[in-house]
Amino acid sequence: MSAADLLAVLITRHLRYDWDEPRLPVNDHLIFSKGHASPLLYSVFKAVGVVSEEELLNGYRRFGQRLEGHPTPVLPWVDVATGSLGQGLPDGVGVALAGKYLERLPYRVWVLCGDSELAEGSIWEAFDKASYYKLSNLIAIADINRLGQRGETDLGWNLEAYARRMAAFGARVLTVDGHDLAAIEKAMTAAEDSSGGQPTVILAKTIKGRGFSEVENKDDWHGKPFPPDMAARAIAELGGVRGIVVRGPRPEPAEPGPVPGIPTTVPRQPNTDARPSAAPPQYEIGKKVATRKAYGDSLVALGARDDRIVVLDGEVSNSTYAFEFAHAYPGRYFEMFIAEQQLVAAATGIAVRGYRTFASTFAAFFTRACDFIRMGAISGVDLRLCGSHAGVEIGADGPSQMALEDLAMMRALHGSTVLYPSDGTSTVALVEAMSRTPGISYLRTTRGGYPGLYPAGDKFPVGGSKVLRSGENDQVALVGAGVTLHEALRAAEILQGEGIAVRVIDCYSVKPVDAGTLTAAAEATGGRIVVAEDHHPEGGLGSAVADALLAAGQQNLHLTHLAVGEMPGSGTGEELLAWAGIDADHIAAAARKLVGG
Amino acid sequence: MSAADLLAVLITRHLRYDWDEPRLPVNDHLIFSKGHASPLLYSVFKAVGVVSEEELLNGYRRFGQRLEGHPTPVLPWVDVATGSLGQGLPDGVGVALAGKYLERLPYRVWVLCGDSELAEGSIWEAFDKASYYKLSNLIAIADINRLGQRGETDLGWNLEAYARRMAAFGARVLTVDGHDLAAIEKAMTAAEDSSGGQPTVILAKTIKGRGFSEVENKDDWHGKPFPPDMAARAIAELGGVRGIVVRGPRPEPAEPGPVPGIPTTVPRQPNTDARPSAAPPQYEIGKKVATRKAYGDSLVALGARDDRIVVLDGEVSNSTYAFEFAHAYPGRYFEMFIAEQQLVAAATGIAVRGYRTFASTFAAFFTRACDFIRMGAISGVDLRLCGSHAGVEIGADGPSQMALEDLAMMRALHGSTVLYPSDGTSTVALVEAMSRTPGISYLRTTRGGYPGLYPAGDKFPVGGSKVLRSGENDQVALVGAGVTLHEALRAAEILQGEGIAVRVIDCYSVKPVDAGTLTAAAEATGGRIVVAEDHHPEGGLGSAVADALLAAGQQNLHLTHLAVGEMPGSGTGEELLAWAGIDADHIAAAARKLVGG
Repeated sequence: MSAADLLAVLITRHLRYDWDEPRLPVNDHLIFSKGHASPLLYSVFKAVGVVSEEELLNGYRRFGQRLEGHPTPVLPWVDVATGSLGQGLPDGVGVALAGKYLERLPYRVWVLCGDSELAEGSIWEAFDKASYYKLSNLIAIADINRLGQRGETDLGWNLEAYARRMAAFGARVLTVDGHDLAAIEKAMTAAEDSSGGQPTVILAKTIKGRGFSEVENKDDWHGKPFPPDMAARAIAELGGVRGIVVRGPRPEPAEPGPVPGIPTTVPRQPNTDARPSAAPPQYEIGKKVATRKAYGDSLVALGARDDRIVVLDGEVSNSTYAFEFAHAYPGRYFEMFIAEQQLVAAATGIAVRGYRTFASTFAAFFTRACDFIRMGAISGVDLRLCGSHAGVEIGADGPSQMALEDLAMMRALHGSTVLYPSDGTSTVALVEAMSRTPGISYLRTTRGGYPGLYPAGDKFPVGGSKVLRSGENDQVALVGAGVTLHEALRAAEILQGEGIAVRVIDCYSVKPVDAGTLTAAAEATGGRIVVAEDHHPEGGLGSAVADALLAAGQQNLHLTHLAVGEMPGSGTGEELLAWAGIDADHIAAAARKLVGG
Repeated sequence: MSAADLLAVLITRHLRYDWDEPRLPVNDHLIFSKGHASPLLYSVFKAVGVVSEEELLNGYRRFGQRLEGHPTPVLPWVDVATGSLGQGLPDGVGVALAGKYLERLPYRVWVLCGDSELAEGSIWEAFDKASYYKLSNLIAIADINRLGQRGETDLGWNLEAYARRMAAFGARVLTVDGHDLAAIEKAMTAAEDSSGGQPTVILAKTIKGRGFSEVENKDDWHGKPFPPDMAARAIAELGGVRGIVVRGPRPEPAEPGPVPGIPTTVPRQPNTDARPSAAPPQYEIGKKVATRKAYGDSLVALGARDDRIVVLDGEVSNSTYAFEFAHAYPGRYFEMFIAEQQLVAAATGIAVRGYRTFASTFAAFFTRACDFIRMGAISGVDLRLCGSHAGVEIGADGPSQMALEDLAMMRALHGSTVLYPSDGTSTVALVEAMSRTPGISYLRTTRGGYPGLYPAGDKFPVGGSKVLRSGENDQVALVGAGVTLHEALRAAEILQGEGIAVRVIDCYSVKPVDAGTLTAAAEATGGRIVVAEDHHPEGGLGSAVADALLAAGQQNLHLTHLAVGEMPGSGTGEELLAWAGIDADHIAAAARKLVGG
């Protein structure tokens, strides 16, 4: 009720939207960052005639219905799922980036924010990036109704404080009485003037429960329906039951405008001026290359073939090798600086506009954006994430930089795909596969260089694996991925020297995992399997293997799981792999024990 | 090198610290939020004489040594691990909250921040809370050297922009030339005047590589050592090799000051004025109570027995029931509003000072703070987290509010404990156990009320489980926790009616899990086990059970794992449990199939 007047003016006079063609590229966008205001959003849908009274009254928050408790893109007019606060504005930054720099269409992105969520740091990451990228097509409407779920917000009705913060972060702030229709109209008209090159905030002082005097500005009505008698009085006070259909302006047809320069985000020292080749990069068998380098190379080749590939990074592009793409295609690369939440949200918003976005940072730092990735899964967005510098293998930098939980986090997301290549060739194939993979896909790359294992052009389907060594009388199977595959191969050499026949499996697809190859290995070896991973013991590769074997009903299993069970410190990668018990010697010892036992 | 002058003045003249007694309660605190400046921190330790030249030169970033790539509390002068940017200042807010409101000691918290990390939203959550809580004992030193890892930061040397932002967020900003020793001295002296009731920022314009002309203000030297010839020239330009020991002021002895009022954060309508009872709350068998309610009740009882219990919540205390503690002990409750990163960081900082902190929000929203919890594990801090409203059981609010990945996330953390009670009595026991559990401990509570299962005072050791039904001829074991335990009990009734003998296990300790009881169940039932959980299939209870059985070498397993395999929408909890296939009927069907097969 606090934002109803704001939305009434927006919908009838400013939101340029063809309600019958929600996929029209020139439509404005409307994002409810305060997703719990879904009754208002659905009332808007009712008012413009795309949701029936029947659906609104009987479908809200009900099983099997699309008017969920918080909006999701199950509805065609909803871009992204919201409901975890502080995400709609960062997502809107992504949509606005696409509109300004990629589609170059005159649509605007209107985002309704609550005041409670302005305490989320992600909101300020969003304002920072919106002003850095001069997103004058982004208009936040801040509904300052003073009251959160359990009481007053930390700034209450201190609109001056909000205004100072927003202005300091580069926004143009238009403060209004959020129930003065003329003032709202004036502010929205002003907001549509994008000549200033800034995002705009319509900062609205509002009253929670506005329009029903019994609850106006009162606590304890957050998210609660009125009892029937109160509801009747509320309707009466609001003017009685009415059923009007309103439609606002439709967007004008438009062609993409000229290509604007992206603010200076391209790393200096471009390593080449040559036109990038679309041919997949090739790596020699036996020659060392880091999979993170192959990731960068692969993106460049992919970018040459597909104009819709867009890459983002969180100020570590010279480590993740995303900078290779930035050099090659500066117009399709966005630097998000040290702001991983906004990194993922921008990738989400750009993906909403049909681009194939890849976002990268150190694997450990995707934990910073876990909630955003989770919400991306709920949005059903196709989001490609690459985390470099995984595990103790990174060595001297120490545990803060070592991703040891990332596989668990990424596997647990609905519909996710988790990939972990061991050499250049497989990286090329998996990056290519990601560009065609729906949902959240995650690639884990490794810091150090390791020998090429596969011939150029070899196939690595998602859900597959590679058997690198096998024979008719294998006594034990070694399962690895990434760095531990190389350790498993060294272990196999050791064991072979001792007369133990070993199968080695590259489990590059951690989710979905190749149950068929794993069960075949279990059958062949009497169930003797050693899994080694550079990750904590829970939820990673070992879990994936165990879950698959058990789900397949595999009997007679003798599974040894080697993982990083203690807190690492600094050291060389080699020292730490040994310390963690996941190097060749430990894998060989585990295999020896299984075979002897 | 950019911050060396700042630290030189701080250490010799302002940091009140007894280097021989790092545990002295009146010591100031020094946190390197820019953890990658560890060479400077360790040089400080060398300069004050607590680290030897030998250790500094030969121990840095080496295996088995304590001078890790990024600082961790392995060193007695380090409060918290840093290295994931934007966390040291939020942690410092926690330490400063403890100093001002709990210990009431005059120590100051000095935090060195880099400029790149000022792009992290968590920094602004920290400034917001620091000003809200009037933390005049918190002094941030912002080292604005313009250059990040891969190029210029988004604000470069725009100190005015930084100053505006910090001031808008309530800080007193003192802008200085970070290489002008007199100006630094003046600013630090001013910062020590805490009468203004604001946090202070010493905003320092600095030059990366300061003191060695070959690299000053140049790109591409981030985190890279000089080659030997350059190093020799750098030392020469800096004045040659020297070895002095400097000591700054020692803290004065102090007694705790008067109890200050906490800004109005206590929810209205306290439900009682009575003095809280230290007796553990009791719940009747068969009577419905929500475990989240029992969490709040338990905290109140615990708080009566232990003055060091401190509780924080992220503006949902009326949902998590943390508000019961807030009513009872307003002086030991901190409202963190909708800022989950700062919520966890504040709990971390307060825990560093020896308090037993509990932090709560919706379980889904702890994903927002995943990186902070991860870093908490690296800090080795004892942190107690309670996530309410887990799984599809919550019903109508929809997927954004449903934690379906939290068990995987929490299990994957090093040294973590994961607990999931099913009734009031077990909640009381587990909250009590958490207060004595080291490391990260996590309690998952449920929205709805379910019947009490256990008599008051029953024991629930961490790592244990409860066998609720068993007999000599059990044909199948049903394993559940939280809501699925109640479904498993209903399933057991159904199956018993069909003549199938069923064992039911309450796996309330998800990590560590009770391997003994599970293997005994597998032995007794011919390996027939059904695990049901209100969580995605990966990394949760099913994984814990599978991992334990396989690690124990259990053979002949027929494990059926029921979990939430699809993306839920809204509905009632009952409808959604059925839809997900984790209700009594589905558990019974799975058991029937195992027994028949």
